[in-house]
Amino acid sequence: MNAIGVDIGGTKIAAAVVSPEGKVLNEVRYPTQAIPPNRLIETIAQAIREVKEGFEVDGACLAVPGFVLTTENKVIFAPNLHEIENIHLDEELGRRTGLRVTVENDANAAAWGEFRFGAGQAVDHQVFITLGTGIGGGVITHGVLLRGAQGAGGELGHVTLDPTGPPCSCGNHGCLEALASGTAIGRRAREVANEMPRSALGRLAIEKQVLGEDVTRLAHEGDKAALRVLEETGRWLGIGLAGFVNIFNPEVVAVGGGASRAGAFILEPARKEVDIRARSPSRDLVKIRKATLGPESGVLGAAALARSEDGEYVLGPSKQVA
Amino acid sequence: MNAIGVDIGGTKIAAAVVSPEGKVLNEVRYPTQAIPPNRLIETIAQAIREVKEGFEVDGACLAVPGFVLTTENKVIFAPNLHEIENIHLDEELGRRTGLRVTVENDANAAAWGEFRFGAGQAVDHQVFITLGTGIGGGVITHGVLLRGAQGAGGELGHVTLDPTGPPCSCGNHGCLEALASGTAIGRRAREVANEMPRSALGRLAIEKQVLGEDVTRLAHEGDKAALRVLEETGRWLGIGLAGFVNIFNPEVVAVGGGASRAGAFILEPARKEVDIRARSPSRDLVKIRKATLGPESGVLGAAALARSEDGEYVLGPSKQVA
Repeated sequence: MNAIGVDIGGTKIAAAVVSPEGKVLNEVRYPTQAIPPNRLIETIAQAIREVKEGFEVDGACLAVPGFVLTTENKVIFAPNLHEIENIHLDEELGRRTGLRVTVENDANAAAWGEFRFGAGQAVDHQVFITLGTGIGGGVITHGVLLRGAQGAGGELGHVTLDPTGPPCSCGNHGCLEALASGTAIGRRAREVANEMPRSALGRLAIEKQVLGEDVTRLAHEGDKAALRVLEETGRWLGIGLAGFVNIFNPEVVAVGGGASRAGAFILEPARKEVDIRARSPSRDLVKIRKATLGPESGVLGAAALARSEDGEYVLGPSKQVA
Repeated sequence: MNAIGVDIGGTKIAAAVVSPEGKVLNEVRYPTQAIPPNRLIETIAQAIREVKEGFEVDGACLAVPGFVLTTENKVIFAPNLHEIENIHLDEELGRRTGLRVTVENDANAAAWGEFRFGAGQAVDHQVFITLGTGIGGGVITHGVLLRGAQGAGGELGHVTLDPTGPPCSCGNHGCLEALASGTAIGRRAREVANEMPRSALGRLAIEKQVLGEDVTRLAHEGDKAALRVLEETGRWLGIGLAGFVNIFNPEVVAVGGGASRAGAFILEPARKEVDIRARSPSRDLVKIRKATLGPESGVLGAAALARSEDGEYVLGPSKQVA
């Protein structure tokens, strides 16, 4: 049977009908700015009803950016999504859609998507990290999504790598997120632009606010300043990943998110740091890969976390069984 | 039914018959220096046979300091224990004892001991860390011991907290182990003794090589230099633990090992750092506690990991069931 995955993002709500093989059979998208005030729940329900039409579907799951108490299908805290905080979403949406609806943190859902259908589909132990404005994470060990006691587990962006490092959105200094997110790339790019004003990066920084994507483009063009920024970022990423490799002994580390489009510019220095810092045998086993599903990881992972009335995953409990 | 736990330590082999309630019913110890060359396996077998006499027992498990491939019951690498490397210990010891014998990493076994019978016995998610010469770790999530793909998971001592920090036994710099182990306390104590030569710590350092236990004793006596060493150590410990709290969202972090005898001198600054650095709701939930089983965590945890012929844990699969 198929399931519906709903990805609640900053700019859009995407709902997709997904087959047990991880194929998107139908998809609808609503830009969030088109949603009237206090109509978020109704819009989510409408997206589910609309995408479902004409398909056999058994269960839906929402991927939400924020703290999700999975045991109660409640969003406790989600920036800019206060309408769905602290209500029983399973009841609210179940009544409106006729489906069993569950809720998951968005990074955990994306991790599960890569595990079921993407970079981790041949393994049982996967660390997923997404490099965007912030850094999100999700971990699967022994085929099980690590939710922790409250569903807040898998928060990989806020391990400290350098207590005297740059400030982080969380209020601390030197978190992985402060050193290797897309935001961190932009910050570091502006610093390096000042140090190397005659580089392409330096010249661009005079014209505009340099973003992570600018740095990747200039690196492709061979600009030394841009290459330096990405290499430094990749090394910090690798220092963080080495810790995760030691902790989880995973077969695969999948790196997704916008900044992962820098590809080898970031992943090669990260792999080198893991080779230096992670311990044998974990270091020898792990493959550090780019995530393969791109922005679809959210709807695919959410769909794969949808449950039927009997409590089982609609798309199968694990890769072995699905 | 009872099970046997065997703890292979640096100075002794301890074997214990343990009841389903976690009570040691019988115990034997062999000092390792009394074991003739190439008689390690036979000595382990003898300890098991001896401790078993007169008790109903179904299964034994060895806790070994080193890399254990649990799926094959093999020790791949264990310093100073080369005799038991790369052989099928289940077969060798099964033949000699008539029991099903499995093998586990010692820190993972100790973690499981605290989880089943100690600091984590009321919870499903526990991080265990042991502060000794090095730092070992073991993690239980959703009631399952985190072994990772090869059994090397739960290696918590080698996350980088400061890439420019002191050298670590693993060859890197600034690992948690290099900053918060018993060895790190000794190193830092010698530095602070130089800076504060008129402190009790400073005067002691002229007489002898200061060890972690000396620092704890002097802290109890109120020596400012010793207190400073332990507070700094506790803060580094807390920086590491904050990351684990974010990653695992555990109910309990249990701190064991020799250096944990410094108690609140280390744990209070550690808790403060966790309060600062870990994120809500994980930060609000977690209790950072001293481990309760002491050196017995090894035999107790190993016994609780022993399996009967049908593959089940002899002492029960989890606290809920046992």
